[in-house]
Amino acid sequence: MRACAAAMNEFLQACRAAIGAPHVLTDAHDTAGYLTDQRGRYTGRALAVLRPADSAEVAAVVRLCAQFAVPLVPQGGNTGLVLGSVPDQQGNAVVLSLRRLNRIRAVDALNNTITVESGCVLQHLQEQAAAAGRLFPLSLAAEGSCTIGGNLSTNAGGTGVLRYGNTRELCLGLEVVTAQGEIMSSLKGLRKDNTGYDLRDLFIGAEGTLGVITAAVMKLFPQPRAQVTALAALPHPAQALQLLQLAQAHCGPALTGFELMSDFCLQLVRKHFPEQRLPFDRPHPQYVLLELSDSESEEHARALFEGLIGTALEQGLVDDAVIAASLAQSRALWRLRESISSAQAHEGKNIKHDISVPISRIAEFIAATDVLVQQAAPGCRMVTFGHLGDGNLHYNVSPPEGVADRDFIARQAAINRVVHDSVDRFGGSISAEHGLGALKREEITRYKSPVELQLMRAIKLALDPQQLMNPGKVL
Amino acid sequence: MRACAAAMNEFLQACRAAIGAPHVLTDAHDTAGYLTDQRGRYTGRALAVLRPADSAEVAAVVRLCAQFAVPLVPQGGNTGLVLGSVPDQQGNAVVLSLRRLNRIRAVDALNNTITVESGCVLQHLQEQAAAAGRLFPLSLAAEGSCTIGGNLSTNAGGTGVLRYGNTRELCLGLEVVTAQGEIMSSLKGLRKDNTGYDLRDLFIGAEGTLGVITAAVMKLFPQPRAQVTALAALPHPAQALQLLQLAQAHCGPALTGFELMSDFCLQLVRKHFPEQRLPFDRPHPQYVLLELSDSESEEHARALFEGLIGTALEQGLVDDAVIAASLAQSRALWRLRESISSAQAHEGKNIKHDISVPISRIAEFIAATDVLVQQAAPGCRMVTFGHLGDGNLHYNVSPPEGVADRDFIARQAAINRVVHDSVDRFGGSISAEHGLGALKREEITRYKSPVELQLMRAIKLALDPQQLMNPGKVL
Repeated sequence: MRACAAAMNEFLQACRAAIGAPHVLTDAHDTAGYLTDQRGRYTGRALAVLRPADSAEVAAVVRLCAQFAVPLVPQGGNTGLVLGSVPDQQGNAVVLSLRRLNRIRAVDALNNTITVESGCVLQHLQEQAAAAGRLFPLSLAAEGSCTIGGNLSTNAGGTGVLRYGNTRELCLGLEVVTAQGEIMSSLKGLRKDNTGYDLRDLFIGAEGTLGVITAAVMKLFPQPRAQVTALAALPHPAQALQLLQLAQAHCGPALTGFELMSDFCLQLVRKHFPEQRLPFDRPHPQYVLLELSDSESEEHARALFEGLIGTALEQGLVDDAVIAASLAQSRALWRLRESISSAQAHEGKNIKHDISVPISRIAEFIAATDVLVQQAAPGCRMVTFGHLGDGNLHYNVSPPEGVADRDFIARQAAINRVVHDSVDRFGGSISAEHGLGALKREEITRYKSPVELQLMRAIKLALDPQQLMNPGKVL
Repeated sequence: MRACAAAMNEFLQACRAAIGAPHVLTDAHDTAGYLTDQRGRYTGRALAVLRPADSAEVAAVVRLCAQFAVPLVPQGGNTGLVLGSVPDQQGNAVVLSLRRLNRIRAVDALNNTITVESGCVLQHLQEQAAAAGRLFPLSLAAEGSCTIGGNLSTNAGGTGVLRYGNTRELCLGLEVVTAQGEIMSSLKGLRKDNTGYDLRDLFIGAEGTLGVITAAVMKLFPQPRAQVTALAALPHPAQALQLLQLAQAHCGPALTGFELMSDFCLQLVRKHFPEQRLPFDRPHPQYVLLELSDSESEEHARALFEGLIGTALEQGLVDDAVIAASLAQSRALWRLRESISSAQAHEGKNIKHDISVPISRIAEFIAATDVLVQQAAPGCRMVTFGHLGDGNLHYNVSPPEGVADRDFIARQAAINRVVHDSVDRFGGSISAEHGLGALKREEITRYKSPVELQLMRAIKLALDPQQLMNPGKVL
């Protein structure tokens, strides 16, 4: 390693020659936005922020990093929640921002594919798909600023997973710059291709530790003719599970959303957003937001919903329910769901857990873990909601009323341990859709088997022998 | 390497101690069925056939193979089409048969998962799913004898890919014995788990060259209330493509099958299976078999089909069409499709190509490649059919009438070259659903980029440094 200042100056000069001086940022003023994570919890340091324009420029700077042994941190929209896209404190790394790689390279409506560069903002991709009369179904809170490269690198989930799968399932091929600075292009857009190891899925979810995703072919879908939303009120998560089963049998793949929210979640929403209203005359312990996407018509979707809810009421699974009568009502129901995180933020600090368990065990998991968390932190308030249809809960913990944020956050490690150990006992995952980043890389060693960790390390060493790709993340 | 006879005897003795002497087969009479491929084209040699009973026994024999440097060839139902599950001529390898690992470990209907050992026959898995009121949608010609481990190792396709994906998309987790003889168990059955590299998808489709799959958690689906089949007659593959687009918009995810067959395919079927009849009063150049799986009712499915076909007739996409009026009629339509391969076999030798191209380019590919094949082998007869909805064709070539099999097969390499080069020009794959095995491992080096091959080799070396796992396959 040539870590001396002269070598670093030489490196930066070579970067300026490769991608143009205006795109090699070193002023603190210019780099600040790239060094702090989305939630403002951590600020790292970097030698520079590099903003290449295209894959060839990415390859050129990765080769320079290899030559000068400079670690690099790939970054898309920097909206991650696990500190995966910001550098550490050493200050010897560069941030490789992909935001200038933001072209839509091709839309093939007949093949139902779109080829995009990794710096494309998710919402832009959704809009381009819609302009071609197609649906790109990945949807999540950060869609206005996250990039598809970040979505792929973290295998993002979101609200459409029940029907369309995680980001992994939406991708048909990648262009990747390897740790050696070579461009691997596999952008054929084929539904079937069995010609060797699945390199695509190795780079997806690797959080930039094996290579840099520069472009992707993503699947498109026919646009549904109608989307209709309903809200059901229930006594307990156990009934929500039964309702899920009934809804899947009744509606098949038309069921595209199934989100659980506890009453306390919606109490917080109404407290901090008093203009939002629940469509029931009294509170119920639990709510499920259901969405149908119908290829026939709104009437057909509504009839399906009416049949489903009628049966659920008859079977005593549901205490009450409303079907949105208009797009505005649908949006209002979704807004309740989408406001939970910010309502909780308004309430003060909280401890978040992005966990999954087998769907069949969710009710049991919530009941058992609530008891354990109350033992560990009596009086704390559970903000439990999420993608029940995927077995994925945002199992968040707010402090007891009157307890100061600082005192509560001091207990974070202990509360995490209680929750994650419980997740493990239920055969679950401590990171369902956010990834490991720097935040959970040590925690995971407690739950992943030695043989899995050893295979991961062998792959890392094989693909990134200099260990320069996003160091300190994942492994 | 201790290749001497004494060491091999020592190895076999250790195997007998590990899995029981009756399950270490060395007699030619006992091993014959494991050494020849399904189509009878190739017979390899082996030191022995090992038949362990469970994962622990698999791990034990893999450790012995590592210790004695004995190559091993994992084998399921041995129904593969690319010589992936038979040993080569060296005679120094063992065949590791997984057929005794045939237990259903668990069915979780609420989680929509089934946990099975890799030696389970696919049809048994389908039946167990049905017994739990669920659908396991993987379906292919060899389902009565192929195993789920083989399906996973080759990422099998089949007739349900359009709606349910390849075998890869149906798997939520694996148990694998690594090349070091350790058991990696990842059978949680989670829909979302973002905690590190995607080891699952690396072993899926690796054809046993990175490790031995011993069990898997597979996805189940609600059983559709009705399945209805239709057959449409069309002038040209271009209209089939337009019909596909219309059907996807009209029926959404209810469209579960879309199979193209040329008139010549069905001529062969009627010639060799004269009891089978086409439901049209005159032949048409092309046919599409459509299947709808409906979560509501047969009436609803039928109405959807009627609407679709009405529109297709109006738009001039379709010349004629029938909707099966009964299960028997549905089966008869599928039988036409399923009889093509054996009809072609009755006709004599033929040269098969399992190829895919972007769906949007299929019609163009067929037209362009037919011309090239006729130039290379004038008078030969194209037997073109397959999973149009997946961009996957079985683009098979039968000899000109009167040409002897031997003379025709002598031209195989030249015809393969013409077809595969054309596939490559159209941005396709030379193995859509059958894998590479030993048959296409050299051919693929012509079409895969050096950087992809290099990454594959790096992964192989990292996971199987002794290069003992299914040598001579894939790479």
